[in-house]
Amino acid sequence: MTEPTLDFWFEFASTYSYPAAMRIEKLAQAQGVRLNWRPFLLGPIFKAQGWDNSPFNIYPLKGRYMWRDLARVCRDLGLPFVQPSKFPQAGLLAARVALVGLEEGWGAEFIRAVYQAQFAESRLISDPAEIQAILVALKRDARAVFERAQSDAIKNRLRENTEDAQRLGIFGAPSLVTADGELFWGNDRIEAALAWAKAAV
Amino acid sequence: MTEPTLDFWFEFASTYSYPAAMRIEKLAQAQGVRLNWRPFLLGPIFKAQGWDNSPFNIYPLKGRYMWRDLARVCRDLGLPFVQPSKFPQAGLLAARVALVGLEEGWGAEFIRAVYQAQFAESRLISDPAEIQAILVALKRDARAVFERAQSDAIKNRLRENTEDAQRLGIFGAPSLVTADGELFWGNDRIEAALAWAKAAV
Repeated sequence: MTEPTLDFWFEFASTYSYPAAMRIEKLAQAQGVRLNWRPFLLGPIFKAQGWDNSPFNIYPLKGRYMWRDLARVCRDLGLPFVQPSKFPQAGLLAARVALVGLEEGWGAEFIRAVYQAQFAESRLISDPAEIQAILVALKRDARAVFERAQSDAIKNRLRENTEDAQRLGIFGAPSLVTADGELFWGNDRIEAALAWAKAAV
Repeated sequence: MTEPTLDFWFEFASTYSYPAAMRIEKLAQAQGVRLNWRPFLLGPIFKAQGWDNSPFNIYPLKGRYMWRDLARVCRDLGLPFVQPSKFPQAGLLAARVALVGLEEGWGAEFIRAVYQAQFAESRLISDPAEIQAILVALKRDARAVFERAQSDAIKNRLRENTEDAQRLGIFGAPSLVTADGELFWGNDRIEAALAWAKAAV
């Protein structure tokens, strides 16, 4: 019997990736679905659609609604939420560190800590000092991690993830892709994606 | 005691308004929430955001995903679905007729029939002959209804609805607005909007 799997595609600058990242692991475990965390960058994907900024900033009506909706979604999930003073925040360093962490077994914990820093603690995740502080809190050797994060292997992996995302037709985050290539978009679709992943085995 | 109410803002050209329109009345009744059907036009609202077409056509990646997601959503709800050959379809006449029907007590039935014609039966709802056929099936006097639908009173009402939608910050359809002005967007938010409507009383 094959184990059902689900790829979770996320970007640290993405707002709805926050509640998704905080809740997906428990849901996947409860359903017996193996989860693959796939960090990628939305920048190149948005650029291909003609956007040089978050669509939530380009379309202010939609942006205003999103912040209100996100606050309601977090409240309903019991997640702390404080609207960040800066949006979007560059997630490049955090994404590279996440790839190191995923290889070393502390990735999920780091990813959740970064989202919490940004969306619950008003911290700037584009600031290397904040990423360092998160690593220290997780009892990691920040200097060694930063060095690996800047290696060609990790830089290439993130670039390949982003290219894979484009190939899969991903246009936003979070996205979920099952082993048979079915794409789901948004925190609202986690349950449907897990059900599909199980049925696909 | 005040009865909880919820305004349901919809546009006939909107894809996710189809499942929303088909299921909202039963859900509202089960929750004891009075439903106000509010047809409006997205065209002026999209124009204000710089779009002269549906964003699902302007951004093909998002459009391709939407059709696949909509098919899944309909299947999960047990709703028939066939992707229309033309999208979007002009909903002006249908919206005016809906306003007549809502005044005369057959509005909800007509609205569901129009969505079903467009999204399950491959019929062109921009064609007056199709609207006429729907009215005949509902045992209405199509000629008398068309005459009322073209009256200044009905034309103004639809224009006012669209202006009201803009004032409320509505940027897409379906949208839901509670008596205390809380805005929810999308078929995915019907349950949350009903819960808010009840809590707001």
